[in-house]
Amino acid sequence: MELLLVVMTFAGSLLALLFAAAMARKVLKFPEGTERMQKLSASIRGGANAYLKRQYRIVFIFFAVMFAILSVMALLKLLTPYVPFAFLTGGFFSGLSGFIGMKIATAANARTANACRDGLNKGLRVAFSAGSVMGFTVVGLGLLDISLWFSLLKFVFKLPPDEITGAMLTFGMGASSMALFARVGGGVFTKAADVGADLVGKVEVGIPEDDPRNPAVIADNVGDNVGDVAGMGADLYESYVGSVISACALGVSAAGAIGPGLDSLRTMALPMMIAAIGVVCSVVGTFLVRTKEGADQKQLLRALSRGTNFAAVVIAVVSFPLVYYVLGKDHWHIYFAILAGLIAGVLIGRSTEYYTSDSYKPTKDLAGTSETGTATIVIGGLSLGMLSTLIPIVIVAVCVLVAFFVSGGTVENPSLGLYGIALAAVGMLSTLGITLATDAYGPGADNAGGIAQMAGLEEKVRERTDALDSLGNTTAATGKGFAIGSAALTALALMVSYIDKVNGFEGGPERIANLQITNPTVLIGLFIGACLPFVFAALTMNSVGRAAQSVVKEVRRQFREIAGIMEGEADPDYARCVDLCTKASLKEMILPTLVAVAAPIIVGLVLGCTGVVGMLAGATASGFLLAVFMSNSGGAWDNAKKHIESGVHGGKGSDNHKAAVVGDTVGDPFKDTAGPAINILIKLLSMVSIVFASVVVGFSLIR
Amino acid sequence: MELLLVVMTFAGSLLALLFAAAMARKVLKFPEGTERMQKLSASIRGGANAYLKRQYRIVFIFFAVMFAILSVMALLKLLTPYVPFAFLTGGFFSGLSGFIGMKIATAANARTANACRDGLNKGLRVAFSAGSVMGFTVVGLGLLDISLWFSLLKFVFKLPPDEITGAMLTFGMGASSMALFARVGGGVFTKAADVGADLVGKVEVGIPEDDPRNPAVIADNVGDNVGDVAGMGADLYESYVGSVISACALGVSAAGAIGPGLDSLRTMALPMMIAAIGVVCSVVGTFLVRTKEGADQKQLLRALSRGTNFAAVVIAVVSFPLVYYVLGKDHWHIYFAILAGLIAGVLIGRSTEYYTSDSYKPTKDLAGTSETGTATIVIGGLSLGMLSTLIPIVIVAVCVLVAFFVSGGTVENPSLGLYGIALAAVGMLSTLGITLATDAYGPGADNAGGIAQMAGLEEKVRERTDALDSLGNTTAATGKGFAIGSAALTALALMVSYIDKVNGFEGGPERIANLQITNPTVLIGLFIGACLPFVFAALTMNSVGRAAQSVVKEVRRQFREIAGIMEGEADPDYARCVDLCTKASLKEMILPTLVAVAAPIIVGLVLGCTGVVGMLAGATASGFLLAVFMSNSGGAWDNAKKHIESGVHGGKGSDNHKAAVVGDTVGDPFKDTAGPAINILIKLLSMVSIVFASVVVGFSLIR
Repeated sequence: MELLLVVMTFAGSLLALLFAAAMARKVLKFPEGTERMQKLSASIRGGANAYLKRQYRIVFIFFAVMFAILSVMALLKLLTPYVPFAFLTGGFFSGLSGFIGMKIATAANARTANACRDGLNKGLRVAFSAGSVMGFTVVGLGLLDISLWFSLLKFVFKLPPDEITGAMLTFGMGASSMALFARVGGGVFTKAADVGADLVGKVEVGIPEDDPRNPAVIADNVGDNVGDVAGMGADLYESYVGSVISACALGVSAAGAIGPGLDSLRTMALPMMIAAIGVVCSVVGTFLVRTKEGADQKQLLRALSRGTNFAAVVIAVVSFPLVYYVLGKDHWHIYFAILAGLIAGVLIGRSTEYYTSDSYKPTKDLAGTSETGTATIVIGGLSLGMLSTLIPIVIVAVCVLVAFFVSGGTVENPSLGLYGIALAAVGMLSTLGITLATDAYGPGADNAGGIAQMAGLEEKVRERTDALDSLGNTTAATGKGFAIGSAALTALALMVSYIDKVNGFEGGPERIANLQITNPTVLIGLFIGACLPFVFAALTMNSVGRAAQSVVKEVRRQFREIAGIMEGEADPDYARCVDLCTKASLKEMILPTLVAVAAPIIVGLVLGCTGVVGMLAGATASGFLLAVFMSNSGGAWDNAKKHIESGVHGGKGSDNHKAAVVGDTVGDPFKDTAGPAINILIKLLSMVSIVFASVVVGFSLIR
Repeated sequence: MELLLVVMTFAGSLLALLFAAAMARKVLKFPEGTERMQKLSASIRGGANAYLKRQYRIVFIFFAVMFAILSVMALLKLLTPYVPFAFLTGGFFSGLSGFIGMKIATAANARTANACRDGLNKGLRVAFSAGSVMGFTVVGLGLLDISLWFSLLKFVFKLPPDEITGAMLTFGMGASSMALFARVGGGVFTKAADVGADLVGKVEVGIPEDDPRNPAVIADNVGDNVGDVAGMGADLYESYVGSVISACALGVSAAGAIGPGLDSLRTMALPMMIAAIGVVCSVVGTFLVRTKEGADQKQLLRALSRGTNFAAVVIAVVSFPLVYYVLGKDHWHIYFAILAGLIAGVLIGRSTEYYTSDSYKPTKDLAGTSETGTATIVIGGLSLGMLSTLIPIVIVAVCVLVAFFVSGGTVENPSLGLYGIALAAVGMLSTLGITLATDAYGPGADNAGGIAQMAGLEEKVRERTDALDSLGNTTAATGKGFAIGSAALTALALMVSYIDKVNGFEGGPERIANLQITNPTVLIGLFIGACLPFVFAALTMNSVGRAAQSVVKEVRRQFREIAGIMEGEADPDYARCVDLCTKASLKEMILPTLVAVAAPIIVGLVLGCTGVVGMLAGATASGFLLAVFMSNSGGAWDNAKKHIESGVHGGKGSDNHKAAVVGDTVGDPFKDTAGPAINILIKLLSMVSIVFASVVVGFSLIR
């Protein structure tokens, strides 16, 4: 079994990485277009590289400090010696996922624009190939990290399963920290540049979007890459790895609780194997994404869906014999937990699409509220987002219940059921390779549109990139469903891992025995945990506000001081805006991350282990709700604006459109900064709790 | 002890009601001013009466249906026979509190305006006296209901303490249902009229606020009375009664758990006695609210604070011997729980004031974000509100911990500690008589300003009513602190009462034994519970939006069709707007209330008792956070707008001011409809759960 596992995961990882490399080669073969396009693309690439370099420098300090802390703890025997190193590799691979994704995205933007000159279908091919690079890099590196550490701990250090998963959870913490930095830093960068460029350029000076005369226009495009691409890559690496290792950990404890009938090595192996098979399904799925020349937007969408649906169906079919083979005839019904996760992911995606696409009533109605002014469209978007939390929460609830009970969980002995919940998250993310590919190509298409505009290409090129972009919005909705749903399930699984961890310490079981919800430490932990996503969202939105204001001032200054800029005779100083965004966003990403790392330690030291569990439950519940609320409000405002731009309710330039633009601007930090970062937050809180569990058990004020 | 208790509560109730009557007489002695003022006041009164009459008709149907359901359940022995009747009286008294408060408010508005012609101090006297009528009616009727039922159940039916509190909890459900109708219906009315009047009047036609040519102007003023006054009255009646009876119930179970050393009659009596003494302190406090003639705003504020502070200090001092006398030397330290509640209430009020008053940095900074446009002030207000949840949640957390441990709660036997938490809520609300008086006069002053404007009184009268209004905003912040804080504590106490209740049924203890937070039903209940306030807030905000749009259309129609309306030659059809708001808001209040009543029953029938407890915990946590978030965002936007109107950032009429007006309009349904209604929601959910506990124990799907 061990050998098969290692072969499968290594092979899966290799396949994913090779496929990513092949796709990258394919993308790079396309020409970058005119000289102007090449120059623009180079500026964007330069800005993005410069940002990442400086981001990594700051992140390096954080990781060095954490490494030192963890090493000291390891020396004090509070942690095993593998932990500090596992932490580092998690951070490294997460960062690398973002980096490679961004590299290919900045290489593909001009190429996509150029391909769109020949036709929509060719444009899709370039954009989707670039998205695939990102998707398969993430899963490839994720599997690589997992299988490397597993082999090392199993074959070199010969640790028992529970210590293997214990160490592996730490690289989850590394990955989550890196992801949070990338999401918050990138999210602040992209929205500050976006808001800054729009407020001065579009509103004050009256030039169109992506106009080369706007000094912040390059920064805006850099932002798409460092935020929506690099941030997303690091984020999903973390989700993917987190779901797999938390399932491994719960597998080990389920086997321990059930006894002889279930082997811990096998329960641990299952999630990794599903992930490996998922890679194969995803690769095959991508080959189905092709259309005839001259296909329209609907056919393109169908082509994309064909790929993802195929991968999902195949994994659903193939997991069945796999589960049967790995767990045997007494436990094969755990398969249905995986299936429940897959279905839940799709359904949450559908719900997101329903609430945020202008093909459906909610967003259409939202566009209509612009008729009575800005205030009503803002109120309408907020209540749409809040209302949209109901269906996903019911889906997650049903998924948790089903996963729990079909896996054989009972109220007396829940361990198998909890394992099932974790496997549902793995099922949900098993086809990440292809879902992420369809998700990640959106920002690339957006960038291609920017380049088309700035390079003065024909109108129809921009129309095609817009079509790709809007196609990306729809597929991104599905991607978001998987990300949000899996985050909630993984966070729950990690909460259980935390309890297991504490139970493993001397004196731990007494300290965590009373998890009754009426225990005041649990209850207070719950309240404080529920508050954390609110505070975190507020901090990141404030960051966007502050950074945007500094951009606004700089853009105003350049319009004022650089003569001939409006006539197109003098070039604006793009680099300065990029530099400003870089500095501002890097400064702003520190506080929210520190809050996320410090909160579980402080809560633990004051309220003890039961307080931490309450905190994790509260943060998961309110974080899930806020993430759905903010993502969907933001998405609906965005599409309501686009709906008006399509000619209804007065169309572009009308007062209604202006009202919708305000809604969209409010939605920007909602959906692209705060919302996705909350997904990472809720997992990072659990990871930090797990790593520092020994400290809390030893030194908490209330025991 | 029983006799002393009955004497104290009856005496307290009598004192409060007599004092309220005396204050009402005092108010009515003042003249109503000019003929025009009398006419305006009569129109407002007429509209408000008509609204309430129709509201009560709908509420009557709801109560009749619920009465029938409860009676059937009583016949089936699922409930005791007192429950249906207790339910009715709770609803009746809650409605009556709102009714009387509104009666006096509509009688006082013109009188306040007229008194302001003579001076600010005289205006305060009339307004504060009217507020006192409301404050003392609420506590008087609350105590009356409590002591009537106690006497009846104790002396006539001779029930044991646990059955007494069981029946009394039901009138809490009646009160909460009524309060929710009043808050939602009134809240939708007032904001629909407000938004409708402003959007067409101020923005489209360009006439000032409260201009008599605006057809919705009377509806707007009616709204202040039916929403901010009648709604608030019913709401706080519910809070007051809820906190006392939940503490009584937990007292009984604490005595049961502790055994011989603690008498259940005594633990039950304590909260009622504290409430009775609180009335006396509040009455004395009101006599301290006087100033010399010619006092400025600061001195007036000091006068108001003197009254509330005096009442708080006296109750803090007097409760000590009371607790010692009632509970004896082994349990006197429960006193500190009461003290913790009092202090927590004050601190939450301070925090609210800090975040929403334009004397402090957050609101000043928010006003500054208007410089970069509408979107940034909206984002700024949202993040301000989210960030402002941190301090109150920490205060509540510390209060809960302190109250739990000083009362003698332990992890093994928490019952005394839970009693302490309930007593903290009673402590917080013990001086409600006077805090509500300082809170309730604000809307009255607002109305007086409207009348002054419409009646064309001199500029300085409006200035004085504005001064009163802004004074009211500050004191209202403190009032809100008490309302929100006590709601959270009371909801927690009710959750524990629910557990006690279930434990009392045959087969109950097994069904509720596993409240571990890892139990999937608890966890899922938690998720769904946390979602309810989001859904509820969305529904109420949508209601405001829909109702406002119908008002907008009607106002536009009148401006178009009634000739001479703009020249002041023809009167607009005020009554039609009032009628429209009435119909719309009554229609809109039904769905949210049904959601609140149905949710606990559905969750219970599917997930069982443990799911209900999870739901209550989740709803309390997320409801508290959303209520604080929405109230503070709304308050801050309101005051940021006023801050700009005071002349900074371009002052009235500037683009910055327009941006701030949008923020304020978004904030209206936040702070006056959704926010306060959530406070009621979280308690109603528990009350419904308690009343239908027997059904859930008997028939739930998962057990």
